[in-house]
Amino acid sequence: MEKGSFTLPGEAGYEKLTLQLAEKWGADVIRDSDGTVLSDEITKAGYGIYSTICIIRDHNEWAKQNPDKLQQTFLMTHPAMAADGWLTVALMEDFFEEQFRVNDSAEAMKYWQVYDRTTDTEVDASKWHYNKKEQTVTVEGVTPWHNYTVSFLAYRIWEEISMYNHTTNNWDKEHLMQIDSVYPETQAYMLDWMKNWCETHPDTTVVRFTSMFYNFVWIWGSSARNRQLYSDWASYDFTVSPKMLDDFAVKYGYGMTAEDFVNQGKLHVTHMPCDRRKMDWIDFVNRFVVDFGRRLIDIVHQYGKKAYVFYDDSWVGIEPYKPTFQEFGFDGLIKCVFSGYEARLCSGVEVGTHELRLHPYLFPVGLGGAPTFAEGGDPTLDAKKYWNSVRRALLRCPIDRIGLGGYLHLVEDFPDFVAYIAKIADEFRALKALHHAGKPYNCGTRVAVLHFWGRMRSWSLSGHFHETYMHDLIHINEALSGLPLDVRFIGFEDVKNGALADVDVVINAGAAGTAWSGGSAWKDAAVIEALTKWVYEGGTLIGVGEPSAVAGYDTYFRMAHVLGVDEDTPERVCHGKWVFEVDEASACRVMPAVAVVPEKSKCHLTDGKASVLAAHDGNPLLTRNAFGKGQGIYLSGFEVNNANTRMLLNLILDAGGEAPNGLYLTDNAEMECAFYPESRTLVVINNADTVQECKIHTECGTEHVRLEAFDTEIRQI
Amino acid sequence: MEKGSFTLPGEAGYEKLTLQLAEKWGADVIRDSDGTVLSDEITKAGYGIYSTICIIRDHNEWAKQNPDKLQQTFLMTHPAMAADGWLTVALMEDFFEEQFRVNDSAEAMKYWQVYDRTTDTEVDASKWHYNKKEQTVTVEGVTPWHNYTVSFLAYRIWEEISMYNHTTNNWDKEHLMQIDSVYPETQAYMLDWMKNWCETHPDTTVVRFTSMFYNFVWIWGSSARNRQLYSDWASYDFTVSPKMLDDFAVKYGYGMTAEDFVNQGKLHVTHMPCDRRKMDWIDFVNRFVVDFGRRLIDIVHQYGKKAYVFYDDSWVGIEPYKPTFQEFGFDGLIKCVFSGYEARLCSGVEVGTHELRLHPYLFPVGLGGAPTFAEGGDPTLDAKKYWNSVRRALLRCPIDRIGLGGYLHLVEDFPDFVAYIAKIADEFRALKALHHAGKPYNCGTRVAVLHFWGRMRSWSLSGHFHETYMHDLIHINEALSGLPLDVRFIGFEDVKNGALADVDVVINAGAAGTAWSGGSAWKDAAVIEALTKWVYEGGTLIGVGEPSAVAGYDTYFRMAHVLGVDEDTPERVCHGKWVFEVDEASACRVMPAVAVVPEKSKCHLTDGKASVLAAHDGNPLLTRNAFGKGQGIYLSGFEVNNANTRMLLNLILDAGGEAPNGLYLTDNAEMECAFYPESRTLVVINNADTVQECKIHTECGTEHVRLEAFDTEIRQI
Repeated sequence: MEKGSFTLPGEAGYEKLTLQLAEKWGADVIRDSDGTVLSDEITKAGYGIYSTICIIRDHNEWAKQNPDKLQQTFLMTHPAMAADGWLTVALMEDFFEEQFRVNDSAEAMKYWQVYDRTTDTEVDASKWHYNKKEQTVTVEGVTPWHNYTVSFLAYRIWEEISMYNHTTNNWDKEHLMQIDSVYPETQAYMLDWMKNWCETHPDTTVVRFTSMFYNFVWIWGSSARNRQLYSDWASYDFTVSPKMLDDFAVKYGYGMTAEDFVNQGKLHVTHMPCDRRKMDWIDFVNRFVVDFGRRLIDIVHQYGKKAYVFYDDSWVGIEPYKPTFQEFGFDGLIKCVFSGYEARLCSGVEVGTHELRLHPYLFPVGLGGAPTFAEGGDPTLDAKKYWNSVRRALLRCPIDRIGLGGYLHLVEDFPDFVAYIAKIADEFRALKALHHAGKPYNCGTRVAVLHFWGRMRSWSLSGHFHETYMHDLIHINEALSGLPLDVRFIGFEDVKNGALADVDVVINAGAAGTAWSGGSAWKDAAVIEALTKWVYEGGTLIGVGEPSAVAGYDTYFRMAHVLGVDEDTPERVCHGKWVFEVDEASACRVMPAVAVVPEKSKCHLTDGKASVLAAHDGNPLLTRNAFGKGQGIYLSGFEVNNANTRMLLNLILDAGGEAPNGLYLTDNAEMECAFYPESRTLVVINNADTVQECKIHTECGTEHVRLEAFDTEIRQI
Repeated sequence: MEKGSFTLPGEAGYEKLTLQLAEKWGADVIRDSDGTVLSDEITKAGYGIYSTICIIRDHNEWAKQNPDKLQQTFLMTHPAMAADGWLTVALMEDFFEEQFRVNDSAEAMKYWQVYDRTTDTEVDASKWHYNKKEQTVTVEGVTPWHNYTVSFLAYRIWEEISMYNHTTNNWDKEHLMQIDSVYPETQAYMLDWMKNWCETHPDTTVVRFTSMFYNFVWIWGSSARNRQLYSDWASYDFTVSPKMLDDFAVKYGYGMTAEDFVNQGKLHVTHMPCDRRKMDWIDFVNRFVVDFGRRLIDIVHQYGKKAYVFYDDSWVGIEPYKPTFQEFGFDGLIKCVFSGYEARLCSGVEVGTHELRLHPYLFPVGLGGAPTFAEGGDPTLDAKKYWNSVRRALLRCPIDRIGLGGYLHLVEDFPDFVAYIAKIADEFRALKALHHAGKPYNCGTRVAVLHFWGRMRSWSLSGHFHETYMHDLIHINEALSGLPLDVRFIGFEDVKNGALADVDVVINAGAAGTAWSGGSAWKDAAVIEALTKWVYEGGTLIGVGEPSAVAGYDTYFRMAHVLGVDEDTPERVCHGKWVFEVDEASACRVMPAVAVVPEKSKCHLTDGKASVLAAHDGNPLLTRNAFGKGQGIYLSGFEVNNANTRMLLNLILDAGGEAPNGLYLTDNAEMECAFYPESRTLVVINNADTVQECKIHTECGTEHVRLEAFDTEIRQI
């Protein structure tokens, strides 16, 4: 089989190992990593060379000369109670002093705000003053027993990814700072630096941007008992500066305030809907990032190099799912993946090359701090599990390249790992070739996931699975990522604008008030009308958790009339509930024996007509309600595993009028398969850690397959 | 010991049994019950005679002649979806036809309303019409895919308590109807009837009203799968009629609508706060019930009889905890009791005689349908368990009488039961005598329970324990009912008006948004100020469940600054949490070994300073936070049992600076005691179903007590 499509992390000082593994893994490209460099022996060996650059850091000299050009954020002090007529608040008391420095310049201070949190009203600026020396704010004429906060701008003086890696790996080197490209001076410096870099790196074929200008939010605290105060992979808090705020006000005709960002100290987690102002801010920052980003990419192109972007770290403002992304002119996008949905997230972006950086990262310890390439670690098993999650998505969507990152020398003591990577590299290349020949067979039922963010947050909620596991939707996304279905992500405006016309199933999954459920978007009668009509005429709404939930109406689930269930709110505690029998026959048809629906809330049948497929103690957990020619399906919760994933597929197929034992489906929930008609090739995977077998109906008869734990078979039929 | 203070249910045909048990149980009064009568042999035997009258039913002849004077209610049809431009709704489809009859008179129909529930707006009356023959409403010009409801007035044609007893006991007799005293004609009839009744019942010494005019809400449905659509012991839905609504509008200057009652189909459960309009309605109905009730009681008094009221069934509008109650002129109040808090509820009313009707009721089956005086029943064990719950409250508060109800002949086959009732009757009389001599010793710490309803809903939430067990507060109330503490119930206006001045501990316990937590009352900054100041100066706030919770502020718990904890809302899913160690030493001091705090929600420490006494999986369940000279205590939930009750006492004592092993406290959580200084008598009770022993510190040294299961010892010291 042809080699290539593999990016190897090289390491100076380990030239022999680098070239040997490049051969073994079929690499065509060698990269550096954060903390490693490549030597001439490597860069001259005939491989393509990726060089990682982080355009906002690695400029400490310039940063020191321009301390007013560092990136910033709003911070809000912990509420402090006034027991007297005045109150003094120490700004930095709660925050990690190695990460932040108060920006008390005049242009910053005009954005500072003091709030009475007891009444949630701003305190007039005439009533407070700042003590620069002590870095305290004193508020006069306060109302006793009220709580007050100060929101202020702070420079971020330690680039967060570097801060994290530094801490994880016990580095003992200078703290890297991040410069803000919003200033003309920074832009001039960066453009010059980029040009110079290209000139001094003739061997580099691909410049990997890590990433553009603004990191996801990661606010650290002063106490070791609560170090990570706030972290959100997709929030825009780290994009602020007086200049960005001033520019915004000019363009939009209104100004953003500190409160628009600190939001009573809650900030704006991606898991919640945002308001129009925040949406404007996102658009504004995205426009800026695209415009200035394009100028850097143009330079790279001028030097005959390609420009890829790493879809992590300081990715905020890039928004690969916004139409503006194409304006960057990127040649490729690289996504680090733990899960199947992340492979779909990468594959779905319109860009030339899609590359996955597999896990484990070649670090002594993993993200959670557990050993990987260290005593007590089992990197091969880790790799198998990650591959097992990612592989099923690769069956459904094309990806162009895979690779690894980190310190290559760490694999020396793990020959099993080296062999396993060689195996999956070959497997990947085989799958890529199949996709190249033609699309895999899909079932006919088309699925749309409906949430506040719509297409802009396709597949991902906010960060990795282990950071978002508490949300039903990430489990749904992960399940969907490997299913033979057409899947898209839509928002509430899309629903009103005809997006339902060409889908068969809509999934709405989330806790009440969250972006995933939709929050106040469900107050819009036009949304209810469009969805109700669509179900009545044959569509299926699958609601998970607290779908369509919003307070203020006769039902808590606004789609209760379709779902046939509603949540037991305290207002209904004196109301009777329909008793029901579980419809075991229907349950057996869609639920594999070990499938389980978690009990996330208490519900009741609205009119007693929904059929209950699973229940606990009289609480319906999985229901199906006929509605016109369509139906509503309710799941109390969803946890991704092999059996539950198959249950979800069966429910969707059933909704689309397709049989759960149709063509190119295994009869064993632990296994999945994909058929590539053009290649007449069937790929069967065992997602379990035990030997499994299955039968698969194909147009050429029934295939029997038996596979070792986690194994793959590629079979011509 | 002196006999008396006991009310025996007599039964004609069982005269010998009646008089024999009257002797054995020390009865001084004999009563009839719903379904039994007394014969002359009984009424002439020298006992006081209670006669139960239900002034609103037992008038079927008059009711049949005056079908427009029956009581009514608003009913709302189940939401129906419009798939076309018009919609026809059958009014009675969802409702029990034996309970309701549509009131389609002109004066009623002016109160009917059609609502578009999708937009939650009323449909103009010009757009719908009523088909009297079909009892349907047709709405024209509807918006397709919207849901519509019709709210209409219906006569209630089967008195609900009678309907329930009828069904429970398989009666086969005429359905009793309930007449509405709002009409002058009904009043004239009732006054005449009352006078005539007094004249024809010379032997009766006490007229027991069951109760006044309006039953608690009990709406039955058309389907056997959902028979009891709605039931709330303290809601006012059954007080409506066109006349009452018209009269209200005249007095208050604004009219109530159907929507004020049906409230989107949710109605107004007592567990939720209500608005000013509903509060006005309660006041208005109460005024009416007191005024007309007084006229009936006056007649009773004119005949030299006493008037007692039964605090159940059609008690709505009586409101024994409102100051207006004294205007009735009742001589006594009778409360049926399953639990300790119900004894306190009775005892706390300002009235001459307080009587408890003990359980089990002398019926073949109990409220839940389980056998009592029937094969498979164990009425003696039932009686022991009920007595065990009620007795500890009787240690703390004076009650004047106890009694039973039902069919006396049923006890014939249960000699154990007869003996046990004799024992507890003596025990009751002994406790009564001790209270008569002087108040029991109380610890010094004074407790106020704070909720929306305040004093008006002292002790009780809405109905019996088994109907309200899902609320933390009923568990708290039940625990408090037998503790040696000064306990009062206050509302949010009281907090602002100085009610905190003479309490040491405030308890706020409930789910977010409920009347028990307080809902939007917590938006009032003056409430926050008063409570904060009071804690800062030495008070203790105990928050249970979701105390002070309301959305819209920086913290979800508005008293988070005092409690030191706040709930994990979805808005905070990306925020870090303080890690903590459980303070085992403090936990041991207040928590008996088997005490458990249920995990009702997920919380985090606000500033990391609260000490955690119990936790599960990193979730704080019991915390204590120093605040000024006072403290905030948080409990995730509370379930009443002997150990948890003692934990609550210890927390309260600790808050008041009292030792958990002080005077007149047992050292065994399964046992409690009360000391009556004037009588120098110590009463010790074993609340467990096993033998227990304990030590008690007294001013005369340490007492050692050993008691059989559920037993009582009364000891002079």
